[in-house]
Amino acid sequence: MMYTPTIEWSESGGFLRVIDQRWLPGRLVLEEVRDVESAAAAIRDMHVRGAPLIGAVAAYGAHFALNLVVNDICDKDWLTEAIHRLRSARPTAVNLNWAVDEILNAARSATTKSEIPAITLKTAHRIVADELERSRLIGEAGVPLIQEIADRKTGQPVNILTHCNAGRLACIDHGTATAPIYLAAKRGLPVHVWVDETRPRNQGARLTAWELGERQIPFTVVADNTGGHLMQRGLVDIVLVGTDRTTRNGDVVNKIGTYLKALAARDNDIPFYVAAPSSSIDWSLDDGQAVPIELRDEDEVHYVAGSIDGERATVRVTPEDAPAANYAFDVTPAQLVGGLITERGICAPDDISSLFPEFDDG
Amino acid sequence: MMYTPTIEWSESGGFLRVIDQRWLPGRLVLEEVRDVESAAAAIRDMHVRGAPLIGAVAAYGAHFALNLVVNDICDKDWLTEAIHRLRSARPTAVNLNWAVDEILNAARSATTKSEIPAITLKTAHRIVADELERSRLIGEAGVPLIQEIADRKTGQPVNILTHCNAGRLACIDHGTATAPIYLAAKRGLPVHVWVDETRPRNQGARLTAWELGERQIPFTVVADNTGGHLMQRGLVDIVLVGTDRTTRNGDVVNKIGTYLKALAARDNDIPFYVAAPSSSIDWSLDDGQAVPIELRDEDEVHYVAGSIDGERATVRVTPEDAPAANYAFDVTPAQLVGGLITERGICAPDDISSLFPEFDDG
Repeated sequence: MMYTPTIEWSESGGFLRVIDQRWLPGRLVLEEVRDVESAAAAIRDMHVRGAPLIGAVAAYGAHFALNLVVNDICDKDWLTEAIHRLRSARPTAVNLNWAVDEILNAARSATTKSEIPAITLKTAHRIVADELERSRLIGEAGVPLIQEIADRKTGQPVNILTHCNAGRLACIDHGTATAPIYLAAKRGLPVHVWVDETRPRNQGARLTAWELGERQIPFTVVADNTGGHLMQRGLVDIVLVGTDRTTRNGDVVNKIGTYLKALAARDNDIPFYVAAPSSSIDWSLDDGQAVPIELRDEDEVHYVAGSIDGERATVRVTPEDAPAANYAFDVTPAQLVGGLITERGICAPDDISSLFPEFDDG
Repeated sequence: MMYTPTIEWSESGGFLRVIDQRWLPGRLVLEEVRDVESAAAAIRDMHVRGAPLIGAVAAYGAHFALNLVVNDICDKDWLTEAIHRLRSARPTAVNLNWAVDEILNAARSATTKSEIPAITLKTAHRIVADELERSRLIGEAGVPLIQEIADRKTGQPVNILTHCNAGRLACIDHGTATAPIYLAAKRGLPVHVWVDETRPRNQGARLTAWELGERQIPFTVVADNTGGHLMQRGLVDIVLVGTDRTTRNGDVVNKIGTYLKALAARDNDIPFYVAAPSSSIDWSLDDGQAVPIELRDEDEVHYVAGSIDGERATVRVTPEDAPAANYAFDVTPAQLVGGLITERGICAPDDISSLFPEFDDG
């Protein structure tokens, strides 16, 4: 890999190295995650974010927790508490619980206690490898959408709007929504990305812009308010976003504001696609409105982090005593979604089981 | 008036005193506008903003310019240039050109040159008084919308979502979108306002929040991305916004992002009303898409202004070499607008001439 990996296991050190994304784009800060507490904190305080990445870090966190019990440093009550704290670090992404369950199931499959550390570490590595492969396959599945527009536009750049960061920083590599974009650029297709700023945490302005710059892919940052206008004026060819959780009926839970862009895409007959690795699909729920929507600290609305002369700084934008509310996600109803791009190909949002029949209990 | 006026003419000083809104909410800074250049700069650099207020300040600016010509300090070529700079300070608000025309027409109506200063000053004062009265009447026209919801909710607060600042800081007093809210609160109706942050210049988080706090009206600041989610969850009863220009077919040009909220309101069957004083209606255009949309400096996207420990500061949120685009307005098509609240009452967006037959040339 050419770039500093989003996460990397240190075999010699026995710890996980992650990019602490709070410091981007100003500084590239690496953090060592060595225990379940720091894994939970990294997820909760958004040093790492993005559904696939949250799952991966949580897997190593659960592995670390089990290590302490196996070595009789902590007891089972502590483990129950630690796993609970890990699971509740972010309530919306389905990957978190899924990855923790995978590690716990792996531990249960061990025939002796001493096997647990090796088995759970191997499982965490497998989760990472599978997530990487899912991203790669989503790129392959999604690139024909861009190719088709490029063919039609004969040399003019394909204008893609994206919201939040569903890029390599949200995943292991390639990203989800960005995977088809990166593959298209690699194949020489002309692309230009409209990057939604993504208030309140500015994952677009900070992270997606940084990633696209890293790969020298043309992009323009816009305020979240801008997408509708761009679509009305014919400046968007396709919308590509990620998802934190997609319910089996095809409702897409993603970063707050995604729903507004889906409405504008429908109003302007612009294709709206969601990159949804199977790890982000919640087969247990039939309705996106049933998903708990994380209400984060209102200070994320009051204060904006950035840099002054290269040094990190935070300014308050609201009056001192103003109340604010900080809903982190919204639900885009399936009928606004043109298709889900999965690692097995593209499907209609209400027809996921055609690609994943093993989950079809109907 | 209880509060520092948005604008005030100093009779003794012969200048206009305005609140320099760039410093709010951290500091209340007053600015003296004494000539056409400072009027144009105050409009261009958004010390003052909001369609009615822009018109008022432009009127005094044109008055100052004419004074210099009457007193033979400047010649007519200079006047032509100065008026052009004033007109082009902001391209989207129709009030600006309208107010300048009113002053020039007043000057032309003078029988002697020496009458011009007094006539144009009187005209500027009249524009201010008329705008104030239009705001007051919009409050009267709009308050039944809130009253009706309050009656239905029997004691529960009426949740109103607004975008940008169409408050007293955008006008002389009362505001446009806020006029019905202020009147409802004055009459004891329970109201709560969802305040869209309004990136990139944060007029909601900075100005609307400040105004609502000033009047002790309950409010909550939210990121612009949030409104759709609030509407899906039944947390918005009505959307009230202002307009920079409404074309005669009822298309509403307003702060970028308004269109997205109108789409969400329609998708959730929530009433969407636009407070549109007749001074903001452009009778010369039949299609909002024909209105020039101001493309402002991209630094307004890159940098966020706020305060650190009470001192004004600005942070950069995007990577150093990232490109950005800063479209200031969008067009909400008439079919998404439930009604226009004017100083003569409420009308369907495609039926403005029923209230203003004098402009009906059809």
